[in-house]
Amino acid sequence: MGKNRLEAFSDGVLAIIITIMVLEMKVPHGADWQTLQTLAPVFFSYILSFIYVGIYWNNHHHLLHAVKHVSGSVLWANLHLLFWLSLLPFVTGWMGENHFAPLPTALYGIALAMAGISYWILVHCIIATEGKNSLVAQAVGKDFKGVISVVVYAVAVPLAFVNVWFAQIGYIAVALLWLVPDRRIEKTLSEHSQ
Amino acid sequence: MGKNRLEAFSDGVLAIIITIMVLEMKVPHGADWQTLQTLAPVFFSYILSFIYVGIYWNNHHHLLHAVKHVSGSVLWANLHLLFWLSLLPFVTGWMGENHFAPLPTALYGIALAMAGISYWILVHCIIATEGKNSLVAQAVGKDFKGVISVVVYAVAVPLAFVNVWFAQIGYIAVALLWLVPDRRIEKTLSEHSQ
Amino acid sequence: MGKNRLEAFSDGVLAIIITIMVLEMKVPHGADWQTLQTLAPVFFSYILSFIYVGIYWNNHHHLLHAVKHVSGSVLWANLHLLFWLSLLPFVTGWMGENHFAPLPTALYGIALAMAGISYWILVHCIIATEGKNSLVAQAVGKDFKGVISVVVYAVAVPLAFVNVWFAQIGYIAVALLWLVPDRRIEKTLSEHSQ
Amino acid sequence: MGKNRLEAFSDGVLAIIITIMVLEMKVPHGADWQTLQTLAPVFFSYILSFIYVGIYWNNHHHLLHAVKHVSGSVLWANLHLLFWLSLLPFVTGWMGENHFAPLPTALYGIALAMAGISYWILVHCIIATEGKNSLVAQAVGKDFKGVISVVVYAVAVPLAFVNVWFAQIGYIAVALLWLVPDRRIEKTLSEHSQ
Repeated sequence: MGKNRLEAFSDGVLAIIITIMVLEMKVPHGADWQTLQTLAPVFFSYILSFIYVGIYWNNHHHLLHAVKHVSGSVLWANLHLLFWLSLLPFVTGWMGENHFAPLPTALYGIALAMAGISYWILVHCIIATEGKNSLVAQAVGKDFKGVISVVVYAVAVPLAFVNVWFAQIGYIAVALLWLVPDRRIEKTLSEHSQ
Repeated sequence: MGKNRLEAFSDGVLAIIITIMVLEMKVPHGADWQTLQTLAPVFFSYILSFIYVGIYWNNHHHLLHAVKHVSGSVLWANLHLLFWLSLLPFVTGWMGENHFAPLPTALYGIALAMAGISYWILVHCIIATEGKNSLVAQAVGKDFKGVISVVVYAVAVPLAFVNVWFAQIGYIAVALLWLVPDRRIEKTLSEHSQ
Repeated sequence: MGKNRLEAFSDGVLAIIITIMVLEMKVPHGADWQTLQTLAPVFFSYILSFIYVGIYWNNHHHLLHAVKHVSGSVLWANLHLLFWLSLLPFVTGWMGENHFAPLPTALYGIALAMAGISYWILVHCIIATEGKNSLVAQAVGKDFKGVISVVVYAVAVPLAFVNVWFAQIGYIAVALLWLVPDRRIEKTLSEHSQ
Repeated sequence: MGKNRLEAFSDGVLAIIITIMVLEMKVPHGADWQTLQTLAPVFFSYILSFIYVGIYWNNHHHLLHAVKHVSGSVLWANLHLLFWLSLLPFVTGWMGENHFAPLPTALYGIALAMAGISYWILVHCIIATEGKNSLVAQAVGKDFKGVISVVVYAVAVPLAFVNVWFAQIGYIAVALLWLVPDRRIEKTLSEHSQ
């Protein structure tokens, strides 16, 4: 009940987030190679954020596939996740325009960490609604990846004030970890469909 | 007839409103803590507006669930609601950038009040189409919350010129009142679905 | 075949057009009544354009309801309509920011006229696909309103250089003419659905 | 499985890309003919990009119609295509604002070429999932048009540094080549449906 509209709304918000980030890449006034070079950090930030939103869309897609009931708490946990993801265009632009200065880099990591935590909350709201023996609960299992991600962020964010590249390596490592879609859910689902 | 497309269009507009608000948080040029501090009021405004759009989406979702026929008046009442909500990114940005100055704070409240009134009009257009004994009519009942909200706005908006925090408290109070989803419709619906 | 995706894409574009127009209402720096006054023409332009997009969405909704086959020419005629409508945020912003100067007012009318003409082309592409005895063909009939609209625009646009209010009256008159949804299609449809 | 959501998400992103491009046409401050003239190259760029996104939407629409299974690789190949298309508003704005200077014109062509290559990758990911005897594989055949397009881009991009109009002619030629929708898939599909 209402699951389709939850998916449609989330898809809409994620599609807009992933697309308006490009608006933070302000069209520069010059038309030479040097101008293009100054855009490099903004462009790199854009790629990283694009991949992150893609990962969330992908996993969200798999997660909701296993959901049967949408409760009020699931609706709000989902909006909470979308809230933190909606900050990505801002923190991406801030980090890129300041060429990976420590504070914006740390803030970028905080936004990612909050998105990770809110995804974890969403998963547990769904499990609370569906039951501990539900498909989702079995599929997510111990949520190893989710825990690792938040630990990596917790280490990477303060490291941004030591050397921003330590933080960036952390963010990229988590992205790589998740680039593999959530096979756990996919596996459990395909085992249960006949 | 056409209900799906009305939902899809409304979801689209609400998803865009909730997401482009972040574009009003202009990426600042500095990269230090002080710059971040100046963003605090914009960020607080953004959170409040995000919650409001979330509430409207949630209630709109429940309201349309009980709808069977979409008449021309419902279509336009819905667009009227979307019009006032579409002003939220603007009034949010204006209030945040001016650090809760009285006039922008009052205007923010007026936009919220107009959205509240247009939601009330939408409900009554639906009831006029569906009949007084319809599910929606029973579910909405006396619309206690809707009336209280508009009364609070009517008090809070002029208070913005006395002390802007009185107005903010009013806006936050109404948000809290509505954060509980429209159980009335949910309840009546679940009673009727066997 | 593919009609749903055509509707979904059109809804998406129309929802974005109607919502990003508010981004052309730039958040001003002042927070006093005078600043608010300077926004009045932009706000009036926004209302007019919002109503126009609402009208197009509404009629597009009724038009596609009667469609059975989506051909390549219908796809492109639809994109052609969306192209002219996508210019509305730009011409709305230009007209509003220049306080209804003659040239922007005329250009606004030209965009409306081109949208009107491209809607007419879309209708006739659909009739060419569906056949002259189809529901759409019968429903649209002589398309009295469409012809009047383009005639009014053709008169209003040059009048913008005499007195911009003559042009504005023309644009408002056409909007009022269309605010009544396309009853012709609605009527013919309801006659045919038993 | 999940095909609808892939289509919905892609439609959302494409609808946003095609619409926010107009935001790169900054509302100018003057209101005279000269101001309008300076917008001409931006407007021309906008038309070309609008047509390109329309072509991609149209072909994407036909391509997915023939798809039965959505694998992880297809999801990411699709996001990869959307990534390059999402750069179109930026490169369009840069090329237009710099009145077709060589470097922005070349970069525009590179974005188009990367989109073309990523479409080709998407097609081949789909064929790898569906099998070499699938509808898609038969429909796409030798993908003559796709190969020609990339060759034309490869010639046109360096030519931008000789004379930008050589490059523009190349970009327009490829658009014309594709304006005819992908009849191959349409034909094969219609042969197989009854």
